[in-house]
Amino acid sequence: MRLYIGLLHYPVYNKNYQTIASAITNTDLHDLARLARTFGIKRFYVITPLRDQQELAERILKHWTTGYGAKYNEHRKEALSLIAISSSLEEVVREISELEGRKPFVIATDARKQKTGSLTYEKAIEIIDSGKAVMIMFGTAWGLEKDFVNKADFILDPIEGNTNYNHLSVRTAAAIILDRLVGRYPQRSQEEL
Amino acid sequence: MRLYIGLLHYPVYNKNYQTIASAITNTDLHDLARLARTFGIKRFYVITPLRDQQELAERILKHWTTGYGAKYNEHRKEALSLIAISSSLEEVVREISELEGRKPFVIATDARKQKTGSLTYEKAIEIIDSGKAVMIMFGTAWGLEKDFVNKADFILDPIEGNTNYNHLSVRTAAAIILDRLVGRYPQRSQEEL
Repeated sequence: MRLYIGLLHYPVYNKNYQTIASAITNTDLHDLARLARTFGIKRFYVITPLRDQQELAERILKHWTTGYGAKYNEHRKEALSLIAISSSLEEVVREISELEGRKPFVIATDARKQKTGSLTYEKAIEIIDSGKAVMIMFGTAWGLEKDFVNKADFILDPIEGNTNYNHLSVRTAAAIILDRLVGRYPQRSQEEL
Repeated sequence: MRLYIGLLHYPVYNKNYQTIASAITNTDLHDLARLARTFGIKRFYVITPLRDQQELAERILKHWTTGYGAKYNEHRKEALSLIAISSSLEEVVREISELEGRKPFVIATDARKQKTGSLTYEKAIEIIDSGKAVMIMFGTAWGLEKDFVNKADFILDPIEGNTNYNHLSVRTAAAIILDRLVGRYPQRSQEEL
């Protein structure tokens, strides 16, 4: 499995659908790093073009990977070691291309239903299982900007709970998406394999 | 569906497996309330015996359900309106029993594998789909205390990602568990129905 995830802080929407650069959130970094470690993700890219925000992310990483935090909680160290900080998706794609010897498929996530077709979880699983390098992009704030989403290779189906409410946090949305794509359900594997 | 969730702040473990009462966390309340609203949960109980912590939770709720937050973001109002604050699981069970006319089944969650049998997701889905009132308990900090877990009617299978790392946040663990138990997967329903 050659699966990567990215958390984008620009370009994303604010509440009024204006394009902004959002702030780094400590909880997002921890929760997504722990998810990445749980689900065998190769690297978790924290993406922001703002230098001061990159520095903030670096300070958090340093604390947990080599500073006091690394001794205080080695499980966090293990998770946060998967984080890399980057300025843009283009930079991330270049880096993964070098690591994997080919460009990754970029799958954008969006809570809104797409007017044109979006990728089913089943198809996404096929792509991942085929061994291709795949990068799944999650948006902070009110989500990934539309133009950014449309430039991705695929847009994943939105999560449907069992209501029409579609306002999950990026932390819980990423958890559900990763579990759907690469999680193990003990009872299902017995039945289906 | 008569599904309830609870977030327990006592008795839970700290890092050294001592029993503690953990602090109310703003992010936990928001993330789990949004999950509850997404997945059609009837009520989300925030459980702590500490009066000052109950007051803190009440202040957060008031801000988002009747204060400035309710106007600022009506989606949050909708989610946080599902929260009820309670002192203990016993109190919650009494309240649900009154609402539903019978005692709920209590399902505890635990990241650790149980020595005795635990409940598969498949069996849990059967219980929920049968229309019985069910209460799923999530633990803060390092998880629900063992004696508390053993008093529940069932203990749910731990989440397995695809590694042996089992240190998710309660926010992301709750997301995965609710999606596994009551989420809709568009592609699966087409195939299986």
